This record gives sequence, structure tokens and C-alpha cells, in this order.
Amino acid sequence: MITFDPRLLNDSEVLGKFELCHVLLMRDANYPWCILVPDRDNMTEVFELSEEDQKQLNLESNTLLKYLKSEFNADKMNVAALGNVVSQLHVHHIVRYNKDIAWPAPVWGAFPAKSYSNEELNNLISKLCEGLAKLGLGFQSR
Amino acid sequence: MITFDPRLLNDSEVLGKFELCHVLLMRDANYPWCILVPDRDNMTEVFELSEEDQKQLNLESNTLLKYLKSEFNADKMNVAALGNVVSQLHVHHIVRYNKDIAWPAPVWGAFPAKSYSNEELNNLISKLCEGLAKLGLGFQSR
Repeated sequence: MITFDPRLLNDSEVLGKFELCHVLLMRDANYPWCILVPDRDNMTEVFELSEEDQKQLNLESNTLLKYLKSEFNADKMNVAALGNVVSQLHVHHIVRYNKDIAWPAPVWGAFPAKSYSNEELNNLISKLCEGLAKLGLGFQSR
Repeated sequence: MITFDPRLLNDSEVLGKFELCHVLLMRDANYPWCILVPDRDNMTEVFELSEEDQKQLNLESNTLLKYLKSEFNADKMNVAALGNVVSQLHVHHIVRYNKDIAWPAPVWGAFPAKSYSNEELNNLISKLCEGLAKLGLGFQSR
């Protein structure tokens, strides 16, 4: 199992793992926002993964996008691998609404993270873990 | 063949096409920046593509990232499908340097596009078309 960059853990909750990727939830109530982190050491770019892992990441990413769009009734999904600050390979999956605080700008650096209450966070984690387990990607909650 | 959203054509040059995706070059000399646009109508999210097209987009995207990183000696590649403004499905592939004008922030909305001179633009297009043709993705220049 990989060691997470501490900055990822500082901003997010680890929900569990698909076959390849760990699934994290950003602690930012402005937008439902998940991050996939492949369980592979020393990766910074998607193309550094093996061909098989690239395909699996694509499958897990696209399946997660489709689930989040439907579950949260998104107007648009944003997906990105940037890594300019945290170089450990991670892919953002963000639910966007045309009335969210940053719309239509990208979310990074737009506004400070908004806290979830403990109850909101726990309810959201439960809902996500239940949903992720139904996607056929071998999700195991942490 | 699809009709491009006029805002994509306004900001970029169409270089040609891989098997699935058109390849565009953003007219922004701040960063070498290519966009892939799948030749499929009425798509806004990557997961709306057929399973076969999702795999092909992933192959073309990852191959393009690897090529751009090497060709332009990037410190990091940024890849993203946002589409909050232009909903036609398109995927950004951006060469980043740790000394570029926006680093480490994402590029969208950070700075106004910087013009290429005609000579710079023509040289860059020639170089890219030559490189893209060698990637084994059936690239045909426009």
C-alpha cells in the first residue's frame, strides 16, 4: 500500500479503495469532490502507469464520474490530473452546479474550503461508501 | 465530422486528427497547450462516449501527454476535462514549467492569453504536426 502525501490526507477523508485506486473525499462542502489515487508508488503522470493500470484508472475514473453526476444531479463534472503542488499522482472528480460558488471557473484556488459539520460529513461518507460499493469496481471501504 | 463550438475555434488552431480526436493548439504562448476533441456529436462528459471510444480517448490522451512532456521538457503535465463554459466535450493537455507565469496555479483564468508571432506559431504547428504523425495514432494533419 502506498504512503499518501500528507497534504492529501490533511484535506480529505480516505473512503476506501477500488481495484486500483484509493477513493478520497475532499473536506470542502462547496462541492462534492472525490479524488482517485492509484495504489502505485512514485507515479506523477497518468502515462507512467503500466498500460493495464492506465486502462483500469480510466475505467474507475469514468465510472466514478457517471455515478457522481447521477447521485448528486450535477450540471457538469470536472475531471483533472494537475499535481503542480502535490506531485503524487491523483485525479480530481468534482461535481459542479451552475449555481455553485465558483461557477463557471475551475475550483482550485477559487474559494477557501467550506467545512462540513460532523453530521454532514458522516452522512455523506455513508452515502458514498454505499454507492461506490455498487459500481462493480471491487470497492472496499476503509 | 463534428461542428466545433465557435469559442474553441476562436482560441485555437486545428492541427489535425487522430483516429478519434481532433487535435487543437491553443493560441497562448504562455504554455504549449493542446486540446483533444472527440469526433462525436452531442457529447459533454467523457463517460457518455461508447466504451470503445472511452478507451481510444484514453490512449490518445495519454500518448499525447507523454509526447508533450518529452518534446517540451515539461516539469509537469496538466490534463483536464472541465467544460463549464464550452460544453462540447474537449480535454486540455497543458505543458507546465515550475517557472511559467501561473505556476503552481491552474492556467484557466490565471492570465490573458499571450500571442504567438506568426513565425512562432507556424514553426510550432510544423513541429507538432511532425511529432504527432509519429505517435502511431493515425494522425492526419488538416
